[in-house]
Amino acid sequence: MRRSIATVCISGTLEEKLESIARARFDAVEIFENDLIASRLSPREIRQRCADLGLGIDLYQPFRDMDGVDEARFRRNLDRAQRKFDLMVELGAPMLLVCSNVQPDMICDDELLASQLHAMAEKAAERGLRVAYEALAWGHHVNRYLHSWEIVKKADHPHLGLCLDSFHILSRGDDPAGIETIPADKLFFLQLADAPMLAMDVLQWSRHFRCFPGQGTFDLARFVEHVLMAGYPGPLSLEVFNDVFRAAPNRRTTLDAHESLLFLEEQVRQRIAARAVADPAAAQLAERIELFNPPAPPTLKGVSFIEFAVDAASGHVLARALEGLGFDRLGAHRSKDVTLYQQGEVRLILNQEPGSFAADFFQRRGPSICALGLATDDGQRAVNRGVAFQLPRYAGRVGPNETIIPALRAVDDSVIYFVSQALEERGFLESDFVIEAGRQGHSRAGIRQVDHLAHAYPLEQFDTGVLFNRVVLGLAPQPSLELADPHGLVRSCAMVNDDQSLRIALNVSQSRTTATGRTAETLQGGGIHHIALACDDIFACATRVRAGGIALLPVPDNYYDDLAARLDLEPGLVERMRQFGVLYDENADGAFFHFYVRSFVGSFFFEIVQRVGRYAGFGAANAAVRMTAQSAQ
Amino acid sequence: MRRSIATVCISGTLEEKLESIARARFDAVEIFENDLIASRLSPREIRQRCADLGLGIDLYQPFRDMDGVDEARFRRNLDRAQRKFDLMVELGAPMLLVCSNVQPDMICDDELLASQLHAMAEKAAERGLRVAYEALAWGHHVNRYLHSWEIVKKADHPHLGLCLDSFHILSRGDDPAGIETIPADKLFFLQLADAPMLAMDVLQWSRHFRCFPGQGTFDLARFVEHVLMAGYPGPLSLEVFNDVFRAAPNRRTTLDAHESLLFLEEQVRQRIAARAVADPAAAQLAERIELFNPPAPPTLKGVSFIEFAVDAASGHVLARALEGLGFDRLGAHRSKDVTLYQQGEVRLILNQEPGSFAADFFQRRGPSICALGLATDDGQRAVNRGVAFQLPRYAGRVGPNETIIPALRAVDDSVIYFVSQALEERGFLESDFVIEAGRQGHSRAGIRQVDHLAHAYPLEQFDTGVLFNRVVLGLAPQPSLELADPHGLVRSCAMVNDDQSLRIALNVSQSRTTATGRTAETLQGGGIHHIALACDDIFACATRVRAGGIALLPVPDNYYDDLAARLDLEPGLVERMRQFGVLYDENADGAFFHFYVRSFVGSFFFEIVQRVGRYAGFGAANAAVRMTAQSAQ
Repeated sequence: MRRSIATVCISGTLEEKLESIARARFDAVEIFENDLIASRLSPREIRQRCADLGLGIDLYQPFRDMDGVDEARFRRNLDRAQRKFDLMVELGAPMLLVCSNVQPDMICDDELLASQLHAMAEKAAERGLRVAYEALAWGHHVNRYLHSWEIVKKADHPHLGLCLDSFHILSRGDDPAGIETIPADKLFFLQLADAPMLAMDVLQWSRHFRCFPGQGTFDLARFVEHVLMAGYPGPLSLEVFNDVFRAAPNRRTTLDAHESLLFLEEQVRQRIAARAVADPAAAQLAERIELFNPPAPPTLKGVSFIEFAVDAASGHVLARALEGLGFDRLGAHRSKDVTLYQQGEVRLILNQEPGSFAADFFQRRGPSICALGLATDDGQRAVNRGVAFQLPRYAGRVGPNETIIPALRAVDDSVIYFVSQALEERGFLESDFVIEAGRQGHSRAGIRQVDHLAHAYPLEQFDTGVLFNRVVLGLAPQPSLELADPHGLVRSCAMVNDDQSLRIALNVSQSRTTATGRTAETLQGGGIHHIALACDDIFACATRVRAGGIALLPVPDNYYDDLAARLDLEPGLVERMRQFGVLYDENADGAFFHFYVRSFVGSFFFEIVQRVGRYAGFGAANAAVRMTAQSAQ
Repeated sequence: MRRSIATVCISGTLEEKLESIARARFDAVEIFENDLIASRLSPREIRQRCADLGLGIDLYQPFRDMDGVDEARFRRNLDRAQRKFDLMVELGAPMLLVCSNVQPDMICDDELLASQLHAMAEKAAERGLRVAYEALAWGHHVNRYLHSWEIVKKADHPHLGLCLDSFHILSRGDDPAGIETIPADKLFFLQLADAPMLAMDVLQWSRHFRCFPGQGTFDLARFVEHVLMAGYPGPLSLEVFNDVFRAAPNRRTTLDAHESLLFLEEQVRQRIAARAVADPAAAQLAERIELFNPPAPPTLKGVSFIEFAVDAASGHVLARALEGLGFDRLGAHRSKDVTLYQQGEVRLILNQEPGSFAADFFQRRGPSICALGLATDDGQRAVNRGVAFQLPRYAGRVGPNETIIPALRAVDDSVIYFVSQALEERGFLESDFVIEAGRQGHSRAGIRQVDHLAHAYPLEQFDTGVLFNRVVLGLAPQPSLELADPHGLVRSCAMVNDDQSLRIALNVSQSRTTATGRTAETLQGGGIHHIALACDDIFACATRVRAGGIALLPVPDNYYDDLAARLDLEPGLVERMRQFGVLYDENADGAFFHFYVRSFVGSFFFEIVQRVGRYAGFGAANAAVRMTAQSAQ
């Protein structure tokens, strides 16, 4: 498929936008009129710039309030259109987007609309241009795609067709299946945007909260399936209005945009392939069309290891904290200043090797988590998938006979290693580390495995993170929650894999004074700041950890009084929780016990959890109490 | 009136909140349950803390999903309520807020609701407590205040009454006049919040976008008039959920909250006084009730002078720019290193006096506008009004025989001088400055007066600024506009006085990379960054300014081509605009010409405008082009 994007999606001047779009490997652009008007480049120079960058210009947009007007105004509109057609000829843009009229005083007469659009198309045809008519979701008279098709059919001009926009159609709850009833030669253009489900005025929703496919909740794969089945021959083009993207550096946004289109193509390909089994037309389409076909997503099996970037001082403090938490110091790396700690299946690596990737990471962000090892079926395939989506491969220095683990550089600049089952069975860490005798990673505090991780994002990288986790790791986003830090709200979106062995909570805060906001700022691009470890007996674990000299986060008495008022709990259980500062949540699926300890270095901290039954949440009900207690530290 | 505020309105821990609330001189608080639960203080300690701070505790809130439940759940709810009553006795809170049930599975039977609330009130009565029932706007069954009154009437218990919340009533568009039909002894509590008009889900609107009275668009004065006329004897209490306030430092927010209540009282007092003329009940109320009665707002007559904090280097650059703009150097201050420039009625002061307020301002913010002189009818009254609203008076060093001008310290830390007509007539500047012979402030470039000012605010101070300008200066906010900077959106709200002689645009951007966002950050609290000067002949002025060696902001050709396509303008006029980079806007009221020049110091710049007819806008249609051109500089 040809891949295109509207210049309005990203920040910067038109010149900067075009450069980023080309760099992200798009084939073409829609030129947004306001970008052109504000540009120092003439239309001819823009055309040349695009040609130099290898970008086609597929559309010039938008042209507003053309149709359903009185004769005098129509003549003025036609004059305005002709001036824009002249410009398009200079620009080399073959098609103009005309939005349905939004003026409340317009004349609501389909015959009139059709005849005016016909006249406009006639003028376009004289210059070899085409007009694509789009029903805005908030159009005064025409606001459904089937209505816009009625008008275009009535107008019946070969240079007039439809522009379909997924936002305008899906935000109204319209069924895109009807698109297949429209002749292919009348489907002139396709604009794609995703969006989160928001109960708000559709115009505000559209202008501020659109996002790229995969970042929201619209079923875009189904939408595009119908458009392609209808025979649409044009590009897949993104048109997204988003306050955050308007403000974020455009290079990352443009890469996300392209990644999102590739991901969408992959999903559409799968849908068409599934449909092809029983539908010959789909089978034909599957033969004919080229849709992106990357290596399959990894099957993840939880966290293999977590690597910290530290220096001598912070490494020492962290090591003492880990020992207090019941971790064994398993051994040191054969060739580097790196140590390995283990408890149950949890392996933590402290990297203070000078000149290494970790040292560089430490320089920029202080003590922090620089790498994550994920257990997977096929590490190489996982990396190949990431590379297919334009993520950079990572290759660190490796000593003789040391293990090479396939890895990607994540969008926050940390490294994600993909540890294959085979590598795990070969004892890949044992080949790199000298394991001290008698050290076995006994679970001294009963900690079994990583339960979940939390990642703090700066506002402008949150959607990037959602996309990365979804596309590259195959994680599914859960509904977003709002948590009340004493210094502002924190939005949290958990992303999990199929068997729940990998759970990552993505946290973001508009406030720079919440712990999340401060962490995202300190870490310059965010990072994992919170590691939750699972045990089977929360009180035994709390007892051992406290005996290990670790202070547990104190929880106010008022919390336990409220717990006793709200829930039907044994008084003895409430008292034990009070004694250790254990927090509690329950729902129809089960129960959740958790307590917190400080790491004493950087901004990350540990949580210890015990899940009972099939409880799948994260104790969000306790977040305000926990964050208040943490802010007091 | 007793003035109260819910602890949920502001940021911080409960202890920090109480301290700020007391410092802002509130009489009492509503304790928000989550604040108590997360607090290390026991209810008894909170009670003591409030007593020490001189704060009453008027309400404990909220209690949810009490009513319309089956018998088993009702027994559990009653048990939960009794535990909360025990807590309230310890806390010394006399009243519990019960919100109408929001659960979709509740039993929608008014008789049942009434009997359950009756039973709850009976339990409250045993402890001498009262229950206030509130209809949430999104309550499942009860979501209108008159419905909640029906239930309370049915329940008929002396310890059960109503809580009225302005948001829940006005967001639904309900008429508050009906409140006067409710007996005074059933009006237990009054919660106040303002809000901007937003077309969105009412729960989201309520939880994120409430604001203090005077910062939104609800007619709260009319609302409170009806409540007081009904005989409500309790406190005016603020309950505001606002994402920005949750994140902002609580001291300023609490001062704003108190200021907003005082302002509301002033408006209510005026309404009741007006009604008293024909309504004996209102006359009685006016006699009986004490409502805040500050000095009247100033009658402003435009800008008297603008003072810049500079050092020698930036002062030199700015002086050259002013001369290029056609200003005369009128003279130097008698005792300080301060110079005065004038053109038409525009007076600009460059202050580089060591050790002065301006020097301190310069230290912290670089070259910037440190003071504004406003022409007014009575400067002393204006300052007295500000002081009545708890704004700090400002008194700078004054040399012998120099003029003392009444002044306030504004919330951004700059100074606002109020220059009385009498002072102006006495030639107050001439007494402080040695005017050089022959310097008369000739309007060499035809600049006549200040047209408007623009003030960049950090996000968390925007509502503070709106309130200050409305309350202290008596300016009225115009509808907000959104402007597209190439690096993010800018929201702009113009505030103007009655005769339009003072217009200030308040600008704010969530993005830190827009010019507005960067300016607000550089100026550490924002400030005036843009001065628009009025002339009567834009082309004559542009010609002179350019001849003065000042570079005008270049505007792209594409802008003029679009202008010609959109509007029916003489081609010659468009060509002249193109020649000078003059931008153009028109509407039914008139037309607007404007061009921009850089100041070359700090982040402020000048705009020169010409208004034709009764055009009252600011050329917002051109903002994107202008901001793109500025960002390229």
